[in-house]
Amino acid sequence: MMADDLLLGGIEAGGTKFLCALADGEGRILDEVRIATTTPAQTLGAAVRFFEDARDTRGPISALSIGSFGPLSLNPAAHDHGAITSTPKPGWQDTDLLAPFRHLVAAPLALDTDVNCAAIGEHLFGSGRGLDTFCYITVGTGIGVGIFVGGSAHGGANHPEAGHIPVPRAPGDADFAGICPFHGDCLEGLACGPAMKARWGVPAETLPLDHAAWDIEADYLAGLCTTLSYVVRPDRIILGGGVMQAGHMYTRVRTRLAEKLAGYDASLRALSMDDYLVAPTAGASAGLTGALALSYRTAARQWPMHWHAHLNVRDDSLHPQGMPLAAGGRDV
Amino acid sequence: MMADDLLLGGIEAGGTKFLCALADGEGRILDEVRIATTTPAQTLGAAVRFFEDARDTRGPISALSIGSFGPLSLNPAAHDHGAITSTPKPGWQDTDLLAPFRHLVAAPLALDTDVNCAAIGEHLFGSGRGLDTFCYITVGTGIGVGIFVGGSAHGGANHPEAGHIPVPRAPGDADFAGICPFHGDCLEGLACGPAMKARWGVPAETLPLDHAAWDIEADYLAGLCTTLSYVVRPDRIILGGGVMQAGHMYTRVRTRLAEKLAGYDASLRALSMDDYLVAPTAGASAGLTGALALSYRTAARQWPMHWHAHLNVRDDSLHPQGMPLAAGGRDV
Repeated sequence: MMADDLLLGGIEAGGTKFLCALADGEGRILDEVRIATTTPAQTLGAAVRFFEDARDTRGPISALSIGSFGPLSLNPAAHDHGAITSTPKPGWQDTDLLAPFRHLVAAPLALDTDVNCAAIGEHLFGSGRGLDTFCYITVGTGIGVGIFVGGSAHGGANHPEAGHIPVPRAPGDADFAGICPFHGDCLEGLACGPAMKARWGVPAETLPLDHAAWDIEADYLAGLCTTLSYVVRPDRIILGGGVMQAGHMYTRVRTRLAEKLAGYDASLRALSMDDYLVAPTAGASAGLTGALALSYRTAARQWPMHWHAHLNVRDDSLHPQGMPLAAGGRDV
Repeated sequence: MMADDLLLGGIEAGGTKFLCALADGEGRILDEVRIATTTPAQTLGAAVRFFEDARDTRGPISALSIGSFGPLSLNPAAHDHGAITSTPKPGWQDTDLLAPFRHLVAAPLALDTDVNCAAIGEHLFGSGRGLDTFCYITVGTGIGVGIFVGGSAHGGANHPEAGHIPVPRAPGDADFAGICPFHGDCLEGLACGPAMKARWGVPAETLPLDHAAWDIEADYLAGLCTTLSYVVRPDRIILGGGVMQAGHMYTRVRTRLAEKLAGYDASLRALSMDDYLVAPTAGASAGLTGALALSYRTAARQWPMHWHAHLNVRDDSLHPQGMPLAAGGRDV
C-alpha cells in the first residue's frame, strides 16, 4: 500500500476529553473531533461513530492507535490486555479501550500511554528529534513519564509509571502527607498540581514567585530527573505540563538537578543543563500526533519521519511544530 | 566464519581482580587467568600479555569484550570513549580500557559495565532466561544495576548508574549521613556494604538477624526495586551481591516491596513476589560469561543461546549454571 492511500486513525484519550483524528499518509489531518470524557459507553460510543462515519465516507481505515490515560494493561498475554485498569477515575476502571474499535480496522490496534504517545510526537516534531533515548515528563493533574529507548516508546512488562517513584522529602516539606490514593507521598502525591493546591490551599498558578512552594516543587522534579538520568541515561529530558507553564521553573529545576547530580559521572558532568532539560516543542496535540504516527508505523512499518515538512506549522513560540488541532477541531 | 573457528576473548575487570578468558564458539573455556588489580599499567599489561600469548599460540582472536567497574564512557562520540572516568579507585581515573587491546583484534572491541555483563550472563544461563526486560542488582562494596531491555543490555547516552538514585530515608534511619563521596546519602551511600559497616561499626555479616540494620537495609533495597519497577517495568528483578548472602533478606525485601507498590497498577499487583524478585543463578562468573557472550555477538551477530548446553555445570545450588572458573583459573 502506498503512503498516499493510507487512512490513519488516532485517539488521544484524556480524563477530560477524547481527541479523535483521521490523517492521510502524509500526516495531513482530514477530520477531527473533540469528545467530552463522560462515561465509557458515551465517550467510546461517540469515538466509534466518528470512525464508522469516516470509514463509510472515505473507505477502509488502515490503522488505528490510542494514546490513553492509565494505568493500562499493555501486555498482549494479559487477560485484561487493552484495558484501563486501576484508575481512580469513576466508571473507567477495567474499561476495555480496544474492543469497541476492533470491527473498524483489519490491522492490529495500537495502544500506549498518553505520555508515550506524546514522546513519539516529540521525537517526530519536537524536542526529541534525532534522539535515540529520552524522557518526556508532564506535570499537571498527575505526573506522567514517557520513555523513548532505541527508537521506540519503552514498554517493558507493561508501561512506565515513573510518576509514582518514592522520593526523599524536599527541604522544608517534612509534614505534608501527600495525596496519592495508593502511595500517599510518592512523587505524584507530593508534586502534581493538585498536591500543590492541597499543600498551599490555593492553585499553584496563584502563588507568588518568591513563595517557598516553587523551590520545593523544583526539588521534587529535579529528584525525578536525577533518578531518570541514572536509570534511563537519556540524551535529554523533556519537561512540560501545567505546573511548568510557570516559566521560571526551568531555571530552578536545572539548578537543583545539577546540584543533585553532584558532579558524578563525567558524561553527566559535561552536560549543558539548558540543552539537557528542555520544554516540549511538539505542540499541545503531540499525543494525538504520536497516536497517528503509531498508526503510520503499523501500516508502513516505519516512523513517518517525512511528516513534519507537510504539517501546518503555527507561528507560536510555545508550540512551534504543533498541528493546528485546537483551531480546526469540532466539539461534541 | 563458522562458530567452530571462533576464538573469543572476555575480561571481567573488577576493583580487586581482572578475570581474563578465552573461549571457543561453543563457549568452552580454553584458557583463563586471574590478575590482581594494582596499577593500570601493571594490570592491563598483564591482561594484554595473556591475549598476546593466546594469539601467538592459537591464532587470531575473533572478538574481545570487557565488562568493567565504572563509571565508564561508553558513548562512541565522546572524546574519552572507552575510559573509566570518575572512579574513586586510586590511579584508575581516566584510564583508557580499550586502547591497550586494539592491536589484538580486528573486530570492534566491546565495553560495558560489569553489571550489564552479569545481566547478559543471567540472560543466557541464569534467572533472566527467556526474559525481554529485567534488572540485575548487586549489593556489595557498591550498588550496581544492570538493565536488560528488548534483548540487549541497556546503555542510553552512557550506562545506568541506578545505585546512585536519591531515596527517602528508611524508618529508623534519619541521622546516618551516608558515605557516597559524591551524593552522601544516595542509595549506595546509605545501603552498600561499607555503608552498613560505617553505620553500625561492624561488618554486616556479623549483625544478628534481629538487628534493626536488616529491616533498614531491606527498606532501601525495596525502594530501589520500586523505582526500577515503575521506570523500567521489568519482567523480573535479580538481586544479589554480598549483602544478599544473608538469605533472610529475600523475604524482607519482597515483603517491603509489596508494601511500597501498595496495590497500584493491576499488572504489578498480580505479580508473585517470589517469582518477581529472585537471586542470581548464573554463577559467580556471570560477568565474565557475559563478556564472552558479547564477543560471540560481535563475531556472530547473535547471542550464543546454545552455550548453556555445553558448559560444565557445577552441582551447586547457589550457582547451578556457573562456569567453573574458580576451579580452573590460574592466579597471577
